[in-house]
Amino acid sequence: MNDEVATPSRLLAQISEIGRDPDRGGYTRPVFSRPERELTEWFVRQAEARDLSVEVDGNGIVWAWWDAPGGVRADAVGTGSHLDSVPGGGAYDGPLGVMSALSAVDHLRARGVQPVRPLVVMVFPEEEGSRFGLACLGSRLASGLADPVRVRRLKDADGMTYAEASRAVGVDPDLIGPDPAGVGRLREFVELHVEQGKGLADLDQPVAIGRSILGHGRWRIVIEGRGDHAGTTRMADRQDPMVVAGEVIGIVRRAVLDVDEARGTVGRIRAVPGGTNVIASRVEMWLDVRHFDDEQTRAIVKAISDAAAVSAERESCSFSITQESFSPTVHFDETLRHRIERVLPDAPVLDTGAGHDAGVLSTMLPSAMLYVRNMTGTSHSPLEHCADADADAGAVALADVLQDLVQKEAR
Amino acid sequence: MNDEVATPSRLLAQISEIGRDPDRGGYTRPVFSRPERELTEWFVRQAEARDLSVEVDGNGIVWAWWDAPGGVRADAVGTGSHLDSVPGGGAYDGPLGVMSALSAVDHLRARGVQPVRPLVVMVFPEEEGSRFGLACLGSRLASGLADPVRVRRLKDADGMTYAEASRAVGVDPDLIGPDPAGVGRLREFVELHVEQGKGLADLDQPVAIGRSILGHGRWRIVIEGRGDHAGTTRMADRQDPMVVAGEVIGIVRRAVLDVDEARGTVGRIRAVPGGTNVIASRVEMWLDVRHFDDEQTRAIVKAISDAAAVSAERESCSFSITQESFSPTVHFDETLRHRIERVLPDAPVLDTGAGHDAGVLSTMLPSAMLYVRNMTGTSHSPLEHCADADADAGAVALADVLQDLVQKEAR
Repeated sequence: MNDEVATPSRLLAQISEIGRDPDRGGYTRPVFSRPERELTEWFVRQAEARDLSVEVDGNGIVWAWWDAPGGVRADAVGTGSHLDSVPGGGAYDGPLGVMSALSAVDHLRARGVQPVRPLVVMVFPEEEGSRFGLACLGSRLASGLADPVRVRRLKDADGMTYAEASRAVGVDPDLIGPDPAGVGRLREFVELHVEQGKGLADLDQPVAIGRSILGHGRWRIVIEGRGDHAGTTRMADRQDPMVVAGEVIGIVRRAVLDVDEARGTVGRIRAVPGGTNVIASRVEMWLDVRHFDDEQTRAIVKAISDAAAVSAERESCSFSITQESFSPTVHFDETLRHRIERVLPDAPVLDTGAGHDAGVLSTMLPSAMLYVRNMTGTSHSPLEHCADADADAGAVALADVLQDLVQKEAR
Repeated sequence: MNDEVATPSRLLAQISEIGRDPDRGGYTRPVFSRPERELTEWFVRQAEARDLSVEVDGNGIVWAWWDAPGGVRADAVGTGSHLDSVPGGGAYDGPLGVMSALSAVDHLRARGVQPVRPLVVMVFPEEEGSRFGLACLGSRLASGLADPVRVRRLKDADGMTYAEASRAVGVDPDLIGPDPAGVGRLREFVELHVEQGKGLADLDQPVAIGRSILGHGRWRIVIEGRGDHAGTTRMADRQDPMVVAGEVIGIVRRAVLDVDEARGTVGRIRAVPGGTNVIASRVEMWLDVRHFDDEQTRAIVKAISDAAAVSAERESCSFSITQESFSPTVHFDETLRHRIERVLPDAPVLDTGAGHDAGVLSTMLPSAMLYVRNMTGTSHSPLEHCADADADAGAVALADVLQDLVQKEAR
């Protein structure tokens, strides 16, 4: 037994140079990239150093088991998060949950806890969806919420398919897909994550318990016009998809402002061919819309599509919109949440707008989340910041919750 | 002497597989890239096969000399064009002028022409400015219109500097800069180019003579806001530079429509970090504005800047605009043009909105252009098309013009 507890901040320091992005700032660690693989290897070494037994399943999810007496892997308590990042993301989104899980294992060992049920630390691939467009890809595949045939064909920005990219790093794309037997070994799942907002900073608390996740969809918009020379083509003769794209950005903003508590974003855009002296032939843009009422989300996207089609028509361009993903609003299991509230009586209960693997897993089993204070409230940005003391408090809170769960027989 | 004339269409067929772009369609042949270097090497072999004597100057301009009796390289007639392309460009923009120059040499040889003055076929690097943002880079450097210190530091989309990229292909960046002695060897320069508009198609003529080039500038716009999470950040708390970018695209369109014969384009845009579920922290966009009256061009850009700054202010974003290049309206030398009109009495005289190396060289010496019919009128696009018969007629017209020039003593 190892009585030394590694704090999350100490563990984060060990990976602080991996995947730094000198251009955007922060970190760029897309799934199956060199930095993300380095992080995964680092995690495996950490797990093995703790005598956890590591397996990687067909969906690329890493499971690090602390087996209970008898060694049967069933009725387990899962915890963990992800190591991939958005382009230019912060240091905590994902890694904080993984580090806190490792740290919680140390705490339980130091406390002399003897689990009655297995505890498993998990790392999920492509939580951000920043490479292949489908967020929580690992947990979605395992839960049967993503079609493996479609996933194998998903392309990244360079045109490389999921199948090619995964095979290149030794993840066999033919093995991805629903894994009810694997996921069925879990009885509960608890994910710790840095808060992606200012809820805790405003309440002056370090740790919160999650109640719900905003429903959330992603759509890809393609506007096609006619590529031509920027100098020789008269304005009257143009079919410029960039002009339509500009209008669509305004349409999104207005459609979302029309609905209370709705959120809508265009954060990614690509002009083809993309030359300064070239009228674009095609503009691709991605739309992210969220609302607690899933019907309302769909109504917003319908309103955007209708107005955008009119704008495209006016410029003699074509317009198409394709849903890349849709995650209904998640209400975390109430029984599990109330049990956690008893363990952490001071922790406030918060809703969030950010999707998580715990939200996807909640379709299969009771799941819960803990959030740790983010001093800036900013996320998906190098400005994201979690104080060391808060990160350490989060790991202790996670250890308390896991201790409560692993010491009791499954219901 | 070689009596066989290679037609431009036959020569173009030899390079038709180099630099194809499977994603955008057409060709992507940026300066100092593998395909552009392959084309340059191909050109050198073609020149040497014609007993032309090849030199590459400090600015990477290739000169292939047909020396006159006495061998003095002065009072020369220059012709040629460029081999680089915009991303996803057509087959003719640039290469047609180079092929026609080689073909014209064959025609003159077949006619038994004995030049009294040297004839030199030239290939200019980075005419499009699609890699380093500065169009006609080779001719600008040679003419003293681009600062070599600034050029060495120009970066491509991957962050590679001109100095690094040029050195990697053996062009010494320390040797770039004004070359009055080199350019001074030319007495006239005539560039043939595919037309980038429908002027000749509408007039039912294969070849035209150039009169002027629209003044033309490029500006880089940077809008900075605050990157954040697309799900957790309330609309009221956002400083989203993409919303400003959308408005700027509309502002550009309206500002340009306000002025007769003005042209304005946003063909290139980049969101940083560029994730679907991330509010951008920065959007960069490039603006191309052209008008015959240079003051009018500047007034349009001023109007765009003023309106864009207001839009940025409204979203609590910052806005900046930087001129990357400005080329005043070019009026080609009248004496040379009238002389060409006498050689090609049927050719119409056209103005154009597209910049060319001949326009830059016109600041140093009498220059002229020939245009060859483009059936679609479209350019900077795979749709650009020149019929073989028109290309061949263009080469004959160029040969006629060059014959007239090289057989007469310099004035």
